Amino acid sequence: MPTVRIVLEYNGARFHGWQLQPQVRTVQGEVERAIATVLRETPSRVIASGRTDRGVHARAQVAHFSCQCEPNLDALRLGVSSILRGEVSLLRAEIVPDTFDARSLVVSKQYTYWILNRSVPPVLDEGKVWLVTANLNVSQMQAQAQVLQGLHDFSSFRGAECDAQTPVKEILESEVLHVPPYILYRVVGRGFLKHMVRIIVGTLVECGRGAPECQDVAQILAARDRGCAGLTAPPQGLFLDWVQYPDFCSA
Amino acid sequence: MPTVRIVLEYNGARFHGWQLQPQVRTVQGEVERAIATVLRETPSRVIASGRTDRGVHARAQVAHFSCQCEPNLDALRLGVSSILRGEVSLLRAEIVPDTFDARSLVVSKQYTYWILNRSVPPVLDEGKVWLVTANLNVSQMQAQAQVLQGLHDFSSFRGAECDAQTPVKEILESEVLHVPPYILYRVVGRGFLKHMVRIIVGTLVECGRGAPECQDVAQILAARDRGCAGLTAPPQGLFLDWVQYPDFCSA
Repeated sequence: MPTVRIVLEYNGARFHGWQLQPQVRTVQGEVERAIATVLRETPSRVIASGRTDRGVHARAQVAHFSCQCEPNLDALRLGVSSILRGEVSLLRAEIVPDTFDARSLVVSKQYTYWILNRSVPPVLDEGKVWLVTANLNVSQMQAQAQVLQGLHDFSSFRGAECDAQTPVKEILESEVLHVPPYILYRVVGRGFLKHMVRIIVGTLVECGRGAPECQDVAQILAARDRGCAGLTAPPQGLFLDWVQYPDFCSA
Repeated sequence: MPTVRIVLEYNGARFHGWQLQPQVRTVQGEVERAIATVLRETPSRVIASGRTDRGVHARAQVAHFSCQCEPNLDALRLGVSSILRGEVSLLRAEIVPDTFDARSLVVSKQYTYWILNRSVPPVLDEGKVWLVTANLNVSQMQAQAQVLQGLHDFSSFRGAECDAQTPVKEILESEVLHVPPYILYRVVGRGFLKHMVRIIVGTLVECGRGAPECQDVAQILAARDRGCAGLTAPPQGLFLDWVQYPDFCSA
């Protein structure tokens, strides 16, 4: 039973998120089906580093599965990418020791959220950015983004249906970058609560707009109350960039 | 009769090129129509720095027109961008002296062509890159790209229906950049023949693939024969980046 590690790029707009669900197209469901077609066998469940929400994109998601046959890895990459053409591409496929687990061995992962800050709609970036037309105080957003670094109780930044055992997470890097007309939020952590990055971005944008209740992220963290943070930013601006393991990085 | 200079971003995939044609949607035709709707008058012809082919994108095309009324420039920007949402955005609109002419006063313009060099199809860049799966010798492409700089007779790089008076053009900058998995071709010139950038890219890719007839761009130039150059690269990888005038740049 070889274990195969795969690296996937996908367009979140085409799927109802990563996780398998009845009736709707999900990345997990379609990738499992495409692998089965190429290998001519039903593989094990395909397990990713974590679920991505509906509409969230991935540049280099990592997953693993096992199968009966000795797979032709080039045929697997090209076949799955061809079946899901323009929606999912398999950037890499490698046989790994069966101790590899894409979910439990994650050391860290990076997300980037792309804000387009101008008055007119996106054209060449359509579906890949959040259009924010308000003037934003980027320095204030940068200062508040830094406050999130470290180990915190992120209850204020936790989506309603989050099933994580604990709201305590460690953020290793958290910064706002200004590349006009874009404002980027880049965050690195071991794991994230449901909607956490999008609620952080929604809060930082409120902060940049000057909303008084969002000027002090330390206070919002301390409140441990979702009602104190900003709205959840829309999914299409969010990209899972890479996943780091003890001896592998998908970047 | 105020003269208005506009800067446009557009997705070439949505149009049959810049130039007005009967029966089909063109950027010029749709922009003229949207301006007429917003200003409630029929403006003059909208003249761009140059025509872009069907499928070619623009980050910051420049054009001008004149109208009877004193236009509300914010309403113009927002109105045209809203009517053509996701297809064309008006990044800027300014009243300029009536001596301004978007076509005849061009000092230089930059195009960038994006090649995705990997084995599996684009996902997040779909419709914005040319997928080339062959191994390419980028150093050789870089060396040959430099040969194009300067004043040359570009007959070998001239599309069949080109109506330019002379095939002699001056290229100010011509370089290949390697940003894996992308290979970019960046070119700056005062003007270009029909399909010239795409034929250059097709030739450089043949060169990178090791095709013997495309190893020597100086010889291809000297031949003044379209049959000596490579195929025309597809339009979706090509972006008009900016246009420079004596006292204005759209970058």
